[in-house]
Amino acid sequence: MKKLVNDPRRFVAESLAGFARAHHDLVRVNASPVYVVRSTPGNGKVAVLSGGGSGHEPLHAGYVGIGMLDAAVPGEIFTSPTPDPILAATREVDQGAGVLYLVKNYTGDVLNFETAAEFAAAEGILVRTVIIDDDVAVLDSEFTAGRRGVAGTVLIEKLVGAAAERGDDLDSLAGLAERLVASVRSMGVAIASPTVPHSGRQSFELAADEIEFGIGIHGERGRSRIGMARADELTDLALDAVLEDLPRLPGERVIAMVNGMGATPGAELYVVYRRMAERLQGIGVEIARSLVGSYVTALDMAGFSVTLLTVDDGLIELWDAPVLTPTLRWGA
Amino acid sequence: MKKLVNDPRRFVAESLAGFARAHHDLVRVNASPVYVVRSTPGNGKVAVLSGGGSGHEPLHAGYVGIGMLDAAVPGEIFTSPTPDPILAATREVDQGAGVLYLVKNYTGDVLNFETAAEFAAAEGILVRTVIIDDDVAVLDSEFTAGRRGVAGTVLIEKLVGAAAERGDDLDSLAGLAERLVASVRSMGVAIASPTVPHSGRQSFELAADEIEFGIGIHGERGRSRIGMARADELTDLALDAVLEDLPRLPGERVIAMVNGMGATPGAELYVVYRRMAERLQGIGVEIARSLVGSYVTALDMAGFSVTLLTVDDGLIELWDAPVLTPTLRWGA
Repeated sequence: MKKLVNDPRRFVAESLAGFARAHHDLVRVNASPVYVVRSTPGNGKVAVLSGGGSGHEPLHAGYVGIGMLDAAVPGEIFTSPTPDPILAATREVDQGAGVLYLVKNYTGDVLNFETAAEFAAAEGILVRTVIIDDDVAVLDSEFTAGRRGVAGTVLIEKLVGAAAERGDDLDSLAGLAERLVASVRSMGVAIASPTVPHSGRQSFELAADEIEFGIGIHGERGRSRIGMARADELTDLALDAVLEDLPRLPGERVIAMVNGMGATPGAELYVVYRRMAERLQGIGVEIARSLVGSYVTALDMAGFSVTLLTVDDGLIELWDAPVLTPTLRWGA
Repeated sequence: MKKLVNDPRRFVAESLAGFARAHHDLVRVNASPVYVVRSTPGNGKVAVLSGGGSGHEPLHAGYVGIGMLDAAVPGEIFTSPTPDPILAATREVDQGAGVLYLVKNYTGDVLNFETAAEFAAAEGILVRTVIIDDDVAVLDSEFTAGRRGVAGTVLIEKLVGAAAERGDDLDSLAGLAERLVASVRSMGVAIASPTVPHSGRQSFELAADEIEFGIGIHGERGRSRIGMARADELTDLALDAVLEDLPRLPGERVIAMVNGMGATPGAELYVVYRRMAERLQGIGVEIARSLVGSYVTALDMAGFSVTLLTVDDGLIELWDAPVLTPTLRWGA
């Protein structure tokens, strides 16, 4: 697959430069070290910060703004940001009430955010860190000890961001994030490999009739390679894996998400959503809110993931609260 | 490319069923004949209706809602809707103030909307039709006499929808739409072919180092097949074609759009936007507002288009007016 790239080594910087120009009303991009902050700082509230390797856009920079993230720290493609930019962003967004780090569970991310948190603490900045590990596919992977953090991250960033915006303190927010991590599960399927800009090569090869079941968001291996099947069968496989693992349910309400991996058209994601909604209705699970689109991607990988997050009235209120970011916006 | 499909003949229906479930707060999908209407009808205002072949999602159904379209009529993949569903949707959305059809310039679309307009007129419904033909690539094509209607359609639907929402009458809205058509130009580039669900085959073949310059949104031929180049060079080629054709400019303001064709990641679109913004700044054209994302697609084609629409204060006010649809939402 050909890519819209100039110099691959400048891809992330050039993309962020375009992002900054397009969304200058909402965000500001610091060029060196690289981080993204909202252009109107929160008023004395706890700051919520996330980050990780690039290649998963719109995660995380697309979620910086009012009612969601105060800062995002992007690394190079599929590469964790180092502690320096994380620390610099932490200093900029802290307003004395502390900073909550929301970190997807990848070994490099966890290490670098931990290091930044230690430096920040030494400067007197209160930091709490919550690790997100919603992927039920595999226990350990090439990139992770334990489960990976995938599409559920967006839901947690939205809900925790809304609670921060209403003025919750740092301990409450960390508690909320921990509770959300315990309530969210995801499972992904790849039907075509992504192409990494630096190499111009595909991350893996799939035969014409093969898919990767339980894929992560770096093209790393999943649970198994299986035969291509109809959309409904693939949806059932992914949904069953989530349902088996989610502490639950009948009579319960969820936020349901169908996430595209980058190159899959929205029309196909709605075919998946249709099946998921029918299945959940059949077992008495109410979809209180939904999100369908390419929100956490793996470059131009084709495929999808399904995510369920169990919610109560309080969480639905946080979901509906105003959000104004480049990617998610409502009520503001 | 594999697709998330069950029975290809039911792809559009199943996708719309998922779309209806996910967005039941904003839209309602009529199953037979197939059309999409907003769930809260406008209060005595002129109705704005669009439609065309499927495969260009989120166009048009994703733009049904408050402040944009009152109805969208999707055909099968790359196939115009017949007059029947257009007429049925027209009857449903008319509130006595008339209906404005916004029609992309493809021969089948123009014919079928014209026929529906005649039937509607015979029933006493006032209908005006405006044809959108923003693509500067080719004069005639496999699907069109004259220029094609492409990504600029979204900008026109937003602006005209806002004017309808504030209560403009049918003649004013038709006049506004005609003026917008005269002020908008687009140019597209394909770097990989789409795959049609029914055949599972690619629409065209491109060598590893080849792109199609001046592509439409059906994988039809463009101006020429040229060598793959860096993102900035491709951006310049597309932007120059638009600038050459746009009645204009220095000191003027535009809404600038970089549109993804379906499978191109957002991060790459921002690389294109960055170059376009730098170029426009260099010639003294101010980007008043922007839109970067996959808004008018050709299934899973890879590539992009650039669109410029010259605007004044009145049009910027219409752009900023509240919109609440599955795809575009702000201020509401």
